[in-house]
Amino acid sequence: MFFHVQRMINEIVSDEPDPAAANALQEGLGGQFGEMRTMMQYLFQAMNFRGPDGKPYRDLLQGIGTEEISHVELIGTTISRLLDGSPQYQGKPTDPLDKPGAGGATPLSIALDEGNIHHYLVGAQGALPVDAAGNPWSGSYVYNSGNLPLDLLYNLMLESTGRLQKCRIYEMTANATARSTIAYLIVRDQAHENAYAKALESLGVKWNTLLPIPKTDAASFPEVKRLLDLGLQSKQYTFDLTGQSEAGKIFQGMSPSNDGTTLDASEQAPEGVPSTIAPERREEFAPGLDPELLELIQATAEMEMADVDALFGPVPPRSS
Amino acid sequence: MFFHVQRMINEIVSDEPDPAAANALQEGLGGQFGEMRTMMQYLFQAMNFRGPDGKPYRDLLQGIGTEEISHVELIGTTISRLLDGSPQYQGKPTDPLDKPGAGGATPLSIALDEGNIHHYLVGAQGALPVDAAGNPWSGSYVYNSGNLPLDLLYNLMLESTGRLQKCRIYEMTANATARSTIAYLIVRDQAHENAYAKALESLGVKWNTLLPIPKTDAASFPEVKRLLDLGLQSKQYTFDLTGQSEAGKIFQGMSPSNDGTTLDASEQAPEGVPSTIAPERREEFAPGLDPELLELIQATAEMEMADVDALFGPVPPRSS
Amino acid sequence: MFFHVQRMINEIVSDEPDPAAANALQEGLGGQFGEMRTMMQYLFQAMNFRGPDGKPYRDLLQGIGTEEISHVELIGTTISRLLDGSPQYQGKPTDPLDKPGAGGATPLSIALDEGNIHHYLVGAQGALPVDAAGNPWSGSYVYNSGNLPLDLLYNLMLESTGRLQKCRIYEMTANATARSTIAYLIVRDQAHENAYAKALESLGVKWNTLLPIPKTDAASFPEVKRLLDLGLQSKQYTFDLTGQSEAGKIFQGMSPSNDGTTLDASEQAPEGVPSTIAPERREEFAPGLDPELLELIQATAEMEMADVDALFGPVPPRSS
Amino acid sequence: MFFHVQRMINEIVSDEPDPAAANALQEGLGGQFGEMRTMMQYLFQAMNFRGPDGKPYRDLLQGIGTEEISHVELIGTTISRLLDGSPQYQGKPTDPLDKPGAGGATPLSIALDEGNIHHYLVGAQGALPVDAAGNPWSGSYVYNSGNLPLDLLYNLMLESTGRLQKCRIYEMTANATARSTIAYLIVRDQAHENAYAKALESLGVKWNTLLPIPKTDAASFPEVKRLLDLGLQSKQYTFDLTGQSEAGKIFQGMSPSNDGTTLDASEQAPEGVPSTIAPERREEFAPGLDPELLELIQATAEMEMADVDALFGPVPPRSS
Amino acid sequence: MFFHVQRMINEIVSDEPDPAAANALQEGLGGQFGEMRTMMQYLFQAMNFRGPDGKPYRDLLQGIGTEEISHVELIGTTISRLLDGSPQYQGKPTDPLDKPGAGGATPLSIALDEGNIHHYLVGAQGALPVDAAGNPWSGSYVYNSGNLPLDLLYNLMLESTGRLQKCRIYEMTANATARSTIAYLIVRDQAHENAYAKALESLGVKWNTLLPIPKTDAASFPEVKRLLDLGLQSKQYTFDLTGQSEAGKIFQGMSPSNDGTTLDASEQAPEGVPSTIAPERREEFAPGLDPELLELIQATAEMEMADVDALFGPVPPRSS
Amino acid sequence: MFFHVQRMINEIVSDEPDPAAANALQEGLGGQFGEMRTMMQYLFQAMNFRGPDGKPYRDLLQGIGTEEISHVELIGTTISRLLDGSPQYQGKPTDPLDKPGAGGATPLSIALDEGNIHHYLVGAQGALPVDAAGNPWSGSYVYNSGNLPLDLLYNLMLESTGRLQKCRIYEMTANATARSTIAYLIVRDQAHENAYAKALESLGVKWNTLLPIPKTDAASFPEVKRLLDLGLQSKQYTFDLTGQSEAGKIFQGMSPSNDGTTLDASEQAPEGVPSTIAPERREEFAPGLDPELLELIQATAEMEMADVDALFGPVPPRSS
Repeated sequence: MFFHVQRMINEIVSDEPDPAAANALQEGLGGQFGEMRTMMQYLFQAMNFRGPDGKPYRDLLQGIGTEEISHVELIGTTISRLLDGSPQYQGKPTDPLDKPGAGGATPLSIALDEGNIHHYLVGAQGALPVDAAGNPWSGSYVYNSGNLPLDLLYNLMLESTGRLQKCRIYEMTANATARSTIAYLIVRDQAHENAYAKALESLGVKWNTLLPIPKTDAASFPEVKRLLDLGLQSKQYTFDLTGQSEAGKIFQGMSPSNDGTTLDASEQAPEGVPSTIAPERREEFAPGLDPELLELIQATAEMEMADVDALFGPVPPRSS
Repeated sequence: MFFHVQRMINEIVSDEPDPAAANALQEGLGGQFGEMRTMMQYLFQAMNFRGPDGKPYRDLLQGIGTEEISHVELIGTTISRLLDGSPQYQGKPTDPLDKPGAGGATPLSIALDEGNIHHYLVGAQGALPVDAAGNPWSGSYVYNSGNLPLDLLYNLMLESTGRLQKCRIYEMTANATARSTIAYLIVRDQAHENAYAKALESLGVKWNTLLPIPKTDAASFPEVKRLLDLGLQSKQYTFDLTGQSEAGKIFQGMSPSNDGTTLDASEQAPEGVPSTIAPERREEFAPGLDPELLELIQATAEMEMADVDALFGPVPPRSS
Repeated sequence: MFFHVQRMINEIVSDEPDPAAANALQEGLGGQFGEMRTMMQYLFQAMNFRGPDGKPYRDLLQGIGTEEISHVELIGTTISRLLDGSPQYQGKPTDPLDKPGAGGATPLSIALDEGNIHHYLVGAQGALPVDAAGNPWSGSYVYNSGNLPLDLLYNLMLESTGRLQKCRIYEMTANATARSTIAYLIVRDQAHENAYAKALESLGVKWNTLLPIPKTDAASFPEVKRLLDLGLQSKQYTFDLTGQSEAGKIFQGMSPSNDGTTLDASEQAPEGVPSTIAPERREEFAPGLDPELLELIQATAEMEMADVDALFGPVPPRSS
Repeated sequence: MFFHVQRMINEIVSDEPDPAAANALQEGLGGQFGEMRTMMQYLFQAMNFRGPDGKPYRDLLQGIGTEEISHVELIGTTISRLLDGSPQYQGKPTDPLDKPGAGGATPLSIALDEGNIHHYLVGAQGALPVDAAGNPWSGSYVYNSGNLPLDLLYNLMLESTGRLQKCRIYEMTANATARSTIAYLIVRDQAHENAYAKALESLGVKWNTLLPIPKTDAASFPEVKRLLDLGLQSKQYTFDLTGQSEAGKIFQGMSPSNDGTTLDASEQAPEGVPSTIAPERREEFAPGLDPELLELIQATAEMEMADVDALFGPVPPRSS
Repeated sequence: MFFHVQRMINEIVSDEPDPAAANALQEGLGGQFGEMRTMMQYLFQAMNFRGPDGKPYRDLLQGIGTEEISHVELIGTTISRLLDGSPQYQGKPTDPLDKPGAGGATPLSIALDEGNIHHYLVGAQGALPVDAAGNPWSGSYVYNSGNLPLDLLYNLMLESTGRLQKCRIYEMTANATARSTIAYLIVRDQAHENAYAKALESLGVKWNTLLPIPKTDAASFPEVKRLLDLGLQSKQYTFDLTGQSEAGKIFQGMSPSNDGTTLDASEQAPEGVPSTIAPERREEFAPGLDPELLELIQATAEMEMADVDALFGPVPPRSS
Repeated sequence: MFFHVQRMINEIVSDEPDPAAANALQEGLGGQFGEMRTMMQYLFQAMNFRGPDGKPYRDLLQGIGTEEISHVELIGTTISRLLDGSPQYQGKPTDPLDKPGAGGATPLSIALDEGNIHHYLVGAQGALPVDAAGNPWSGSYVYNSGNLPLDLLYNLMLESTGRLQKCRIYEMTANATARSTIAYLIVRDQAHENAYAKALESLGVKWNTLLPIPKTDAASFPEVKRLLDLGLQSKQYTFDLTGQSEAGKIFQGMSPSNDGTTLDASEQAPEGVPSTIAPERREEFAPGLDPELLELIQATAEMEMADVDALFGPVPPRSS
């Protein structure tokens, strides 16, 4: 069973909207090696896991899989923020923006030239479950052979490929919003690379100098370096509410990344930052609620409560 | 950010393995109107939500979306349990079962006649992210127009269709394992139908006698009736760890299902039952860990710890 | 612009329901070489047609394309009729059939063993836009290069392949409902083969003995022979309401099928037979309207009319 | 059975070619909520309709479905016209245009920078059965649960989403060719929204102020306003040649769009305008017929007729 | 540049036709981990290879990729042979078999009950480019990140998964035709597993006891054991006609499979066996050539030669 | 069984990198009518061929199919060369190019504006198995009905469409690298068009003036004219190593292209040119091997050999 808190797993730094960067990030969300895939792959591997003796491996998969849901939330929100208001950016005409097609205006003309027209046409300046070339995410991506060494080997390759692709995205844009999330995911992918490498070490493999893949020079990636200095590549959280996870039996000892750190699975979760709600976008016909609706809702709710009270007495206050 | 506990959201009753039922249930997991889709649709709608005034609606989406992850876990595990050991059921030869192809035997010959050969060939008697006709789940299923009334209308239709399909699956099999999960999801889909109907009521719609869709007679579905008698169709949990959800502002008052109940959003989550790990399946070459591997792992871990201790002192105990 | 009459283009003979035959016919509806594809391909070729001098070719495409919509209607309805009531056929238990899941019964258990479980689970014993292996129809099937000889060559091959596949389906089932439609389409595909072959003859090609493809012996196919004796393979209707079609400039002269007939484009359309509406299927939760709903509708309509009359006076009688 | 007239259902206004607008309109043709989808969805719902008592609902579906075929024709032709000759527009070099690759020239270089290179590479400056992001249309879009309230609810949501997307496309381009078709479809989608809303009213629902979705201000859309002033949003044609449609039993009374109009189903069809054929495009190797071919065709036809006359006497004049 | 000889890379043993086994083998041909995928993946990796210093790695990919084309030929032909004549097998009526639909007979009725109806309906009792669940092969399967360690790691996992799935197929059927090919591919997949494992060893990895994956006991698989005894799992051919391959610099030394063998890359290719052509299948309307056609061809050829001789003198004899 | 030589079937002329041209060429590689499709279609038709009397037809299919593998290699390598180093072209900043993200730089920013972002994000400036609009290649493209005349007719149409599309690509770019390959394939497609046209002539068809399709004027395409002057459109190689091909029985006599040439099947293969390996691309994290790795490899290999020598004596020299 899963729970939620209204916090992002990492901060999304503010910057200008940037729809091209948003589109590149779609690969990290809905691409073949993106967060929706890692999330689903590990949840399926955990559900279908075989062999009670292997509980530490199952718990490792469950913990990383749970983290990936938060990564989906993080990168999806980042894409949304990069798109939000983008018709106005880079000297585009701003005036008719909040008045949909006022007098026949074209406030969404930017859509014709950007990476994925669906960001403005099918979605409302929000994230989509597709990759950077517009292909919808597919269940055929999920790998779960049931053979433990094979599943671990695939997962190691999957995290390394995700990290490779995010390094390439980093090189495509300097937008600070995009980079704050990309840098975080580069470092977390390495933590997961370490986790699966370590699990394979427990089955006898010695990696020597092969890891991490790809080899990167932290000095080239200032936003990444900051997080490496905090040791985030060597921590794995359990995200387990009742402390039953045995993942720490695997995620321990020297890091297979050859960076001299020791792996640490002692924390339940990072602290995170509060999440926020985006403003309305009238040019998308995507108002949350207009003032009349809000009034209506208030009135309806009061009337309902009166009805209910009449029948049952007052609803008890929520305890949560 | 998301968390996990090692409990199933509802009990999976024991019965014989039944691969045909397992395949029918795949529609409820990976089908166009299954749990993977509701989960993804609501998470995307929550991430991309517009209009801070609409927080109660966002929180409703977030809460139901979080519940759907647990439904994915529940139905995926149910499918896995229905498949597990199925080569042995209904008088199939059992002897060579745990000895893969011993002397050229065919312990997996059942796979040639069942609903989806991939359950034995690509997976290891486990759930797949596909529908009952074998189509992989697709990101193109997710609907998120950004227009609140439209998104709610779609969600109402989506839950009703999911419930319709599950009623049909109920009529396809009497297997108790399958039915315990199907009945639970029929009732929870109705709770979600109520939630979206109520949200649309807050925008002015009167449903009168239309709901629930489909109309069903509880007496025909004994497993469902038991849960309706508990009122599960009129509760919505928040799954919110810190009590910030405002979904209760919407999920309140008389049920739009015309069953005389009052909606109740006062509980954080159901209690659930402990989850378990499936046994090994040697005929699938899917051992978790064999005895030699276990010994090796133990030895490796001890050696590693010694190394680490030498360098850093003992790893601190995990606090979670 | 398109119009409709409530008639089927050919009679559907009555026989037992037969879900296996229904599934085979899906190839003729939603397959890569089925009627949805020919319909869409010719409509796109007609819309995008180039060169006003080529109007006879455009009109030939438009006329055949319009016929294909009626073929979609014919084969779709045939599939629906073959599925309708199939849970009862071949000695299946009939009692609980009209009572969905009465007391926990399984009236849809047949679905687990038939060609496409979606016929009972996603549809309600009705046709689907998929092929016989369950693949959804795809826009990537449509071919329209814009080069007239190539488009004609493709269309000739397309009709011949459609006819080949229908001959194979004929060999798979002796169900009279299935065969009445299959036989009709085999003959009409040959008429279209003749049309495109003739169009290519007008561009210089001599087919000699190659056509028709495949070569078939009418005596082997009694249902087909009856229609050939009526000369249906050598007629092409215009389906054009105002007599502007010039397709007859091409569809004339000796048949390229070497059967000694002369092609005839002088008729607007076949006579057809009245269409009917299927009965309700309660086990599918697919009632059209139950008695209470009907009463409600009647009452609502009367009240509405009173409102309207009060405001505007009586609605004028419909003239159509 | 279906018929055709050589008329467009609405006029396509002339303007410059505009391949970016053409690509945006592809969503309205081949997108998940475009005209190919509405057409197919309603035709399948009509074919598979259950319950003879519900004939007015079936006829409503049949009538709207038939109209959608004409919408496919309208928007497909509009896209074709927007693409036709586009290599020459906006100051592009015009000289080598009609001479394919003359001396190694690149008359199609525009294709490398436009929305969908397939418009010039796979098609010949014509419409394709794909959406604005290039995804082929899929049969998996079609929804037909067999449950009448659910099908109507989906159709209401489908028309509203189509209208929402077309409002967004309106805001992307001011091209008059594109807008004449988009504005017409915005208004017709509203008529269909009204139709399905009214059908649900007959089942008890009260919409109050929710419709239309999305809420739009006619004054912002001059091309739309002109059509609203004509009342096109409150008419539904039968497209039924023999007057058997009972759709008018539903499509009557006050409009659920709250615009004070009364619904009117008394007309068979709009008048429409004559359709035309596009010119040849030599740079696409897409000639209809060159002069030599025309001569050859003439000669072939005369010879054929002589043969046929010799055998059978003169072909009788076509009567249609 | 590629060449061909009319020989199969391994013998296909004769046995009864067996369409269920044929369908299981489709996974090995067109599945996500089948031979079409390995072939395409290695050919793309070889074409796009970076770094002239890595020629031994490129040559290893090129050599294995070339072998995979022969594996496609082998398994495709095996499937064809397993299907060929299958309507007659297991006591099915044989008489009308060669007379398509004679008198309305149903010689293809077997198609309705087998794994993939397309084997009889779209193909003519021949192999298809799809997997065992009927999904068409997709270009999205091909992995080529450009990062050498990652590509090698993926390839190792790919070969191991292919071998795992073939071991499962082995357990599904005892048909000797199917098993002769499956056993051969199990052993060759291990050779390729060894190749990629060795390439990764050259980059520093020590596999210790992890390989081969999956662990199998040769004694359980008699057909496999015979080939292992010949050492086929430890040989890699170059398939290079001019001896330029440097793959032997990698494929050498002790086998990483821990079977005590030494790797050997000294042979160009196995000897293979002659390939044959399948008989006609009249019930599929799939005649190669009927007697009249053969006569016609003969006559045409002679006439043509006469023409050519008249113009140019005799065509010189082919030298190949 | 297949073999390889390290030579390209035709020379790839040098020019600037050009990612837009590279993307257009993807249609010729992974498009519905590209080289991957012709290759697979003919290999499947050859594997599944029926009727030993038709061996010349089978051999024709086998020979052309084998040539298509070399075409895949040619066009794939051409795309790779057009992409390679493209971040530097047209005045893009060159300095940080070989230092991945040095100091936070964006050496891959070009990816955001080019035809397919996957060329830089999923691949490493290399070819992908997709078409020019980014759709992955699909097994559903392959056509193999088993009916010989139909298969030949489809193949004729397929080659003509491929040639049509390549003529359009020729008109999109003047890049010499792109054109050298496009021109070669235009001419070879014509040779294959001739082959299938001739095969159909042997079955009785007379093409008269219809071929080639499309009609082109050689003078307009200088690069094509040079190859036509060499007669490459009238040659078909066997690519058969042991001279067993009987394709020459069909590919002989006057060319159906009406260019006055005689068809010639007397050569085994063209000479080709040596193939080369692309340089490393550090900004893609796609190094073949860095210096440390090379040293490591050398050391590992020597140690291994020592081990092996100790056990078995020296490995014998490779004989190939």
